[in-house]
Amino acid sequence: MDKVNLAAKFALFADYWHPRIVGELNGQQVKLVKFQGEFIWHTHDAEDELFLVARGRFRMDLRDCPIWVEEGEFLIVPRGVEHRPVAESEVHLLLFEPATTVNTGDQAGERTVEQPERL
Amino acid sequence: MDKVNLAAKFALFADYWHPRIVGELNGQQVKLVKFQGEFIWHTHDAEDELFLVARGRFRMDLRDCPIWVEEGEFLIVPRGVEHRPVAESEVHLLLFEPATTVNTGDQAGERTVEQPERL
Repeated sequence: MDKVNLAAKFALFADYWHPRIVGELNGQQVKLVKFQGEFIWHTHDAEDELFLVARGRFRMDLRDCPIWVEEGEFLIVPRGVEHRPVAESEVHLLLFEPATTVNTGDQAGERTVEQPERL
Repeated sequence: MDKVNLAAKFALFADYWHPRIVGELNGQQVKLVKFQGEFIWHTHDAEDELFLVARGRFRMDLRDCPIWVEEGEFLIVPRGVEHRPVAESEVHLLLFEPATTVNTGDQAGERTVEQPERL
């Protein structure tokens, strides 16, 4: 049983949109991700996703209205809700989601990370 | 769908050892708790628990050796592992655990919170 230091784990990678697994419990995973720019619109049919901002801020685009999420805040996107994360500057996020979750949801393609690395 | 500001939620309560629910997803809950001092030894037979330090530090006593967990770090205690959280000064924690998790695990008693409040 080892504790995880978030800053130390974030320091291990620099690429955007590639979640890393840093913890697993109860069939769920804790992932870290960095990004900047705009992702694709997608939906997870069977997974709710939690986005907690460790550094920076980002905007979650939703079909009705966008939500800005700041450092020290989290947002839960329920399954079935189409969403698109966007960040003007680099943002560092912690994700909590089921181990079955694929980053691009129902929109598999070139931005899909099939097997996230464990850090 | 509302975002959650951790500092704003922590400001809503001051008592120790009483987790509050601030998010739910995939049968799991996100809880916030403050504490200082020593809890009781207990075990969760069916739930892994994640402890993320938002402010301060605490020591997780385990039967083999204790682990200090600092601000910006998290620890996952797997089901079946006896543990006791201890803090010399006030600590603020985010917990991520199944909705079925009771704070005192197998040691129900005066420190048990049966129905945590939702904030």
